[in-house]
Amino acid sequence: MTATAEQYTVRHRETLDRALQAIRERAFWTPYPELPKAYGEQAAADGKAAYEGYLGGAFPLVQPGTDEMVGGERSPYGAELGITYPHPDLDELLPAMRAAMPRWRDAGPDARATVLIEALARLNARTTEIAYAVHHTSGQAFGMAFQAGGPHAQDRGLEAVAYAYAAQTAQVAAAEWEKPQGPKPALRMAKKFTAVPRGIGLVIGCNTFPTWNSYPGLFASLATGNAVVVKPHPNAILPLAITVAVLRDTLSEAGFDPNLVALAVEKPGEGLAKVLATRPEVRIIDYTGSTEFGLWLERNAAQAVVYTEKAGINTVVVDSVGDDDYKGMLGNLAFSFSLYSGQMCTTPQNIFVPRGGITVGGEHKSFDDFGSDLAGAVEKLLGDDARANALLGAVCNAGVSERLKKAESVGKTVLASRSVANAEYPEAEVRTPLIAAIDAADSEVYTGEWFGPISFLIAVDDTDAAIETFRRTVREHGAITASVYSTDDAVIERTEEAALDAGVNLSVNLTGGVYVNQSAAFSDFHATGANPAANSALSDLAYVANRFRVVQSRRHI
Amino acid sequence: MTATAEQYTVRHRETLDRALQAIRERAFWTPYPELPKAYGEQAAADGKAAYEGYLGGAFPLVQPGTDEMVGGERSPYGAELGITYPHPDLDELLPAMRAAMPRWRDAGPDARATVLIEALARLNARTTEIAYAVHHTSGQAFGMAFQAGGPHAQDRGLEAVAYAYAAQTAQVAAAEWEKPQGPKPALRMAKKFTAVPRGIGLVIGCNTFPTWNSYPGLFASLATGNAVVVKPHPNAILPLAITVAVLRDTLSEAGFDPNLVALAVEKPGEGLAKVLATRPEVRIIDYTGSTEFGLWLERNAAQAVVYTEKAGINTVVVDSVGDDDYKGMLGNLAFSFSLYSGQMCTTPQNIFVPRGGITVGGEHKSFDDFGSDLAGAVEKLLGDDARANALLGAVCNAGVSERLKKAESVGKTVLASRSVANAEYPEAEVRTPLIAAIDAADSEVYTGEWFGPISFLIAVDDTDAAIETFRRTVREHGAITASVYSTDDAVIERTEEAALDAGVNLSVNLTGGVYVNQSAAFSDFHATGANPAANSALSDLAYVANRFRVVQSRRHI
Repeated sequence: MTATAEQYTVRHRETLDRALQAIRERAFWTPYPELPKAYGEQAAADGKAAYEGYLGGAFPLVQPGTDEMVGGERSPYGAELGITYPHPDLDELLPAMRAAMPRWRDAGPDARATVLIEALARLNARTTEIAYAVHHTSGQAFGMAFQAGGPHAQDRGLEAVAYAYAAQTAQVAAAEWEKPQGPKPALRMAKKFTAVPRGIGLVIGCNTFPTWNSYPGLFASLATGNAVVVKPHPNAILPLAITVAVLRDTLSEAGFDPNLVALAVEKPGEGLAKVLATRPEVRIIDYTGSTEFGLWLERNAAQAVVYTEKAGINTVVVDSVGDDDYKGMLGNLAFSFSLYSGQMCTTPQNIFVPRGGITVGGEHKSFDDFGSDLAGAVEKLLGDDARANALLGAVCNAGVSERLKKAESVGKTVLASRSVANAEYPEAEVRTPLIAAIDAADSEVYTGEWFGPISFLIAVDDTDAAIETFRRTVREHGAITASVYSTDDAVIERTEEAALDAGVNLSVNLTGGVYVNQSAAFSDFHATGANPAANSALSDLAYVANRFRVVQSRRHI
Repeated sequence: MTATAEQYTVRHRETLDRALQAIRERAFWTPYPELPKAYGEQAAADGKAAYEGYLGGAFPLVQPGTDEMVGGERSPYGAELGITYPHPDLDELLPAMRAAMPRWRDAGPDARATVLIEALARLNARTTEIAYAVHHTSGQAFGMAFQAGGPHAQDRGLEAVAYAYAAQTAQVAAAEWEKPQGPKPALRMAKKFTAVPRGIGLVIGCNTFPTWNSYPGLFASLATGNAVVVKPHPNAILPLAITVAVLRDTLSEAGFDPNLVALAVEKPGEGLAKVLATRPEVRIIDYTGSTEFGLWLERNAAQAVVYTEKAGINTVVVDSVGDDDYKGMLGNLAFSFSLYSGQMCTTPQNIFVPRGGITVGGEHKSFDDFGSDLAGAVEKLLGDDARANALLGAVCNAGVSERLKKAESVGKTVLASRSVANAEYPEAEVRTPLIAAIDAADSEVYTGEWFGPISFLIAVDDTDAAIETFRRTVREHGAITASVYSTDDAVIERTEEAALDAGVNLSVNLTGGVYVNQSAAFSDFHATGANPAANSALSDLAYVANRFRVVQSRRHI
């Protein structure tokens, strides 16, 4: 290990140990502050300047096998970014990445973990710059881009590093084995156990959460000794280009080959993800995106282990609520529908409500009245345009607008989506949630994902039917999140049982400042890997344990 | 949990804790004695009587959906077993198995682990009976069938239980999460984390090690809350039928549904493994056998996670040996070639030897002289027919005999295989190892597996060429074992580096009572999952961590 790498090992040992404790205990913890003021007064201006410095130029990243510079990002807030990035000749880039691996493997789990924590610390220091990059590629409002794209993504990266470290150190690095032989001398062997990487990991980024959804796979593969090639979504390259540049610098300074991490940006229509995913050098794939391509990867990238997060139908079961909690429940749901215009893999879509109504504070509330109350809560939340913009962000692609249009003719519109003016960025498309009431019989509507600010109030016979439809539809079609509202412990218990059976994480009676679409690193698992929406969770042991293999050597003593 | 299950939890807690320590520390440990005398004077007679009691009758196993009784095992030692077993109607059996799972899931990791350790204790008490069953289905000599089919298989089962327990308890079962909110009250959530099973596990048994190769997957899937259907090799049903019966009894007595485990025996030519492997209820598959069917499973059983052990080309690199160690090295290799007639996935096949010879005690030894010495060591080891029978066992199927015939015309025969008479069982086919000398240029010969007592002395340019050919061929074609003989630390280091790169476990300078084809549970990993011979190791975290998923439920406090 180099002197610099040793320095990092000392500097970040405590953070690693604390993270290892956190993934076991799952109480609240984070080393990366989520409030901008924690980053000092100069950070906002510096970050903005850094972001603006990239615009209209070639991104400063020198990689082997770059055959041309490509790009074409356009901000959902209007402007062309005009940044170009290296496009790879894979026959040059991938061998260079493979060549970087033996030294990284030989460094061992401690050095790898702490060098990566150094990189995370550097990314953390550049949170504002990354926030601007996420804001202008995903369309997330700036405040959300700051938190989700910065500290929360860094949390998920560190969490993956901790799991990777825990899995690799599950057994000693060396052991003596002594087997008694009765009266004869014992058999004695010295054994060494080495974690070896699989090969090159491929991380396929998404448009909406370029850092948050990429960091777990990126850091998990690196921490287990692999090299990683990052293929960003063509609309959201910059946040990952900054990330790759920071990692390459950190690795280099620590005495490792920077080619352990590389960016692979595609030309328009090139389909680079498919090409990369079936290269023999690529042995691990992390993907967030459509079910169609996720299933293609699972079935066609036979040479790799494939971790996917795909589409799902997030579900809410509404049974009853206390009088004091009704307003909180409506506000909580309204916020969940609105946050980032519902462009989250965690936004609730299917709200199962008994056809005959629900109980609020012991009183009956009809299905229609509940719908009106919910619509009113959304309207109230988004009544002020400035606040609406800060919550909704901008529509990130035309597909969302098309689905909103289509949803207008589904069932009975309980709340229409409206366009919100954005004074700073007049070109931004900002849309409020649409809520449509449909019947449980309309299953063709609600068994598919309507990605965007679209939710269905689905009339079911009763609470039992709601729970059973929840169980069956999530089991068959997948979900990342689910929640239930009930004052009846038996209903909550039956919903929990259904959630275990369907394999989805459940939130019970959320009425305050925690939303079903948010998960906290080190405490909440994001997705379960137990239903069709994802084959893995961020992060757990299963997410890391097969990114490396243990190879042993033994000899007589 | 029932009173009986609680009893088991108390009774076996110490064994579980000791096993958890063992998988971390990887020193010698086993709770199951490998010497017959440890089982008491009566065990031999009782076990034989129990085995003979099964012959010619219906095996006592009552399962849902049994549509007829089938069987057709014939001992490699001559006799028809004449035992019949339940053949399943899967549309009845699999739903009954699924229905058994929720209660098993709800029992939690502690109860599952200790109930399974109780089952292992009962299997251990029936070791002699199982030894006879393994002996007469695999053709293993009785002494080996006793150890490998009994205590060593039980060790591997317990090891899998320990890993499964460790993975499921990697996080707390419940946590409180409290996130500070500056001057406002903290956000507080109570969270529960539940390990949920994937579904039904399918274990596909093999002919040669019906218990040893099946117990890891069987116990790992059960310990993580799944049900398991066991599909034995049609020639080796009885050892797994006894195992399934013991598990069903134990589960039943502990208050669980015995349908958590079932036996699925096929009719001749039915291809039941393929049918089972693609059933939607089957979510985990464990397989040991041909590369062809292993790859078929990996590519076609898309609904399941698939663990396979396939063919490989186990390799020895010979460079140099000290004078004192030469005899030990020859004896060690001769034993490894001979044990169970080389019908082990761990038997060395490819022996790379410099064309110009090796160094023995500082003196030059020609390639041909080394070949003669090695042939002589095998002849000496097997010179006595009784000892030869005790080591070689019987040829388990016609494929082995056919390959021996074919190998006669490959290269230059250094040692011909001979038939050994078996006084007790005149019908048994007992064959000694064949050794053929070939050249490194004959790569079409040695890049495929010749399962059985067939080894090649392969002339290479020098030790470096041996190491590089080892690295390349194992990387491309796979291996479960590798070993190197050298007095030169630099050669050993280069071979270790090649082994890390090829992803194969290495044994260095084995000259004593440890053989390359033996691995000790709790200390040696069997296979690495890092080369084409297997996609997993017995056992490690990766082998268990994806057999269950964690589902959480959270609510405000």
